[in-house]
Amino acid sequence: MITYQTTVLEEWVDYNGHLRDAFYLLIFSYATDAFMTRIGIDPQRDQQSLFTLECHLNYLHEVKRGAAVEVRTQVIAHDQKRLHLYHDLLVCGQGITAAASEQMLLHVNLRGPQSAPFNEATVMQLGSIREQQSHLPTPPYCGRTIGLAPATSGR
Amino acid sequence: MITYQTTVLEEWVDYNGHLRDAFYLLIFSYATDAFMTRIGIDPQRDQQSLFTLECHLNYLHEVKRGAAVEVRTQVIAHDQKRLHLYHDLLVCGQGITAAASEQMLLHVNLRGPQSAPFNEATVMQLGSIREQQSHLPTPPYCGRTIGLAPATSGR
Repeated sequence: MITYQTTVLEEWVDYNGHLRDAFYLLIFSYATDAFMTRIGIDPQRDQQSLFTLECHLNYLHEVKRGAAVEVRTQVIAHDQKRLHLYHDLLVCGQGITAAASEQMLLHVNLRGPQSAPFNEATVMQLGSIREQQSHLPTPPYCGRTIGLAPATSGR
Repeated sequence: MITYQTTVLEEWVDYNGHLRDAFYLLIFSYATDAFMTRIGIDPQRDQQSLFTLECHLNYLHEVKRGAAVEVRTQVIAHDQKRLHLYHDLLVCGQGITAAASEQMLLHVNLRGPQSAPFNEATVMQLGSIREQQSHLPTPPYCGRTIGLAPATSGR
């Protein structure tokens, strides 16, 4: 499921002309916004939104200024209030996955703000997407922990 | 060790006036740049730099437009080429930790580009910082994995 497409903007690159680490996450953040719309959550209309609790990124390839990229999104799991998403960032036409990001999101009633169960319509949408994606394997950069392996530690 | 201080800029906030998830990482990214300078790595002079391999963020509190924030940084570990850093984002004057980020960084010779061992001067700097920080406990959001606990899963 493609959730976001863009070209890499001038203000997102560093002195080397490569996408800066934080702007990979900005692209993933826009993809999450688009996914939120797709599952029927509209902050302005409903005073409900998704807050990011936690995220993880793996950087796999450099991306240059002006490159066309797209984000593909997989639902890993959800419960009544939380949604576990996985995004891949692909460089269009090159078949390269440039980065991967896992995100844990919380459904929030903005009037509190406080956490709130997903609406029934959103639960149905999530179920339908899960079914469409049921053939997909668990993605490679899912469930990772950051750390140096003891054998290579310089301590 | 305070590595970066800023106020939250207008272009970093969402429609609610809160810092967007990706811009927490931009602030951490600037903190990593400042830390890199502190350990004697200068991309322009030496054609060496740090590339982010992987990072993890935990969002703990909202941060509003115009808030004064600072990043405090702890060295978790390093080997010959890799550096494991931990950043806290604090809202100044409020004693609130707004977010935490773990990062795994790779030392790179930009002429390749290819991974390269740290220079001796950098290894000395890292050793000195590790010694200054030896009284600090392992930070709370270190080594985390994203996932829904089975008991709360809605599947």
